Amino acid sequence: MEIHELSREEIDRLLKRAPLGHLACAKDGQPYIACVNFAASDRHLYGFTTMGKKVEWMRANPLVCVAFEEVKSPREWATAVVTGRYEELPDAHGTVELRDYAYALLQSKGRQWWEPGYVRTVLRSGERPLEPLYFRISIETATGRRAGLDPIEAAQPKRPSPSVLSSARRAVRKALNAVIR
Amino acid sequence: MEIHELSREEIDRLLKRAPLGHLACAKDGQPYIACVNFAASDRHLYGFTTMGKKVEWMRANPLVCVAFEEVKSPREWATAVVTGRYEELPDAHGTVELRDYAYALLQSKGRQWWEPGYVRTVLRSGERPLEPLYFRISIETATGRRAGLDPIEAAQPKRPSPSVLSSARRAVRKALNAVIR
Repeated sequence: MEIHELSREEIDRLLKRAPLGHLACAKDGQPYIACVNFAASDRHLYGFTTMGKKVEWMRANPLVCVAFEEVKSPREWATAVVTGRYEELPDAHGTVELRDYAYALLQSKGRQWWEPGYVRTVLRSGERPLEPLYFRISIETATGRRAGLDPIEAAQPKRPSPSVLSSARRAVRKALNAVIR
Repeated sequence: MEIHELSREEIDRLLKRAPLGHLACAKDGQPYIACVNFAASDRHLYGFTTMGKKVEWMRANPLVCVAFEEVKSPREWATAVVTGRYEELPDAHGTVELRDYAYALLQSKGRQWWEPGYVRTVLRSGERPLEPLYFRISIETATGRRAGLDPIEAAQPKRPSPSVLSSARRAVRKALNAVIR
């Protein structure tokens, strides 16, 4: 297996294809992760969710990170990681067009994009209220990597053994034990 | 589709089964996400990586979040979200047993657990150095949810139409346009 960097064009294409993203936000230094359906335009990721912990946190600190993956197998995948700023698209003058745009973009992805946000959720404390909310992430940085079989594996598809690492571990333990005892 | 909360026992079982996790760390309010193979014990997630951005960030701020998923289909899945503290297991007196434990636990998961950390990575700036590092996350909170078909869908497996949401959107737009114009 070998990992290579994606070009900006490859990242853009991945963002447009990829379905669910992992969205990380942070409050007082504590990160939090949630899954959100996104639809990408050139400079933004448009999303839909319902009021809850992540929205409260992103209102307090708009800095976020979103990770997308396309996984063919555990050793053949592509990933894109975006950092950016949360921006809410409220039901207000000035954002009607943006909300319509977000709706059309999400709709065009052809999945149940309002899930898992807009889904009846039964918690021990009761049923979660469903207050819909559109938002977007303005993309500040975007990096991407692709993993694939290296030339040797591709020619001879056999999994490499972990002997390199495990023998290194054994050597480390032996050396340390010799020092300690 | 309906979402239900997982019990602590269900979360523990998911953490033990689930392969790759999404690890979020944060520095100066900016979150960052990376994929890491973990192996769970009762109170910790043991992981292996190589030196790089996420380790630098977790050394500066040990508060992290890890998300795991088991996806059967886009509408049938389980997820667990853990918050906790990063703790490095260096090559030093006092952590040899913990490193051996981490190694054995990761090894027992039967996957290429040293990937994607310990993999030749070719970036535009050159090849990434591979300096291995064991660590663990002490689990502070753990929540989990499961999505499945609701009783109506299960009896009549037809996807619900987005008409509820789209008609709500149309009503909002109509009302806003009436106010604005």
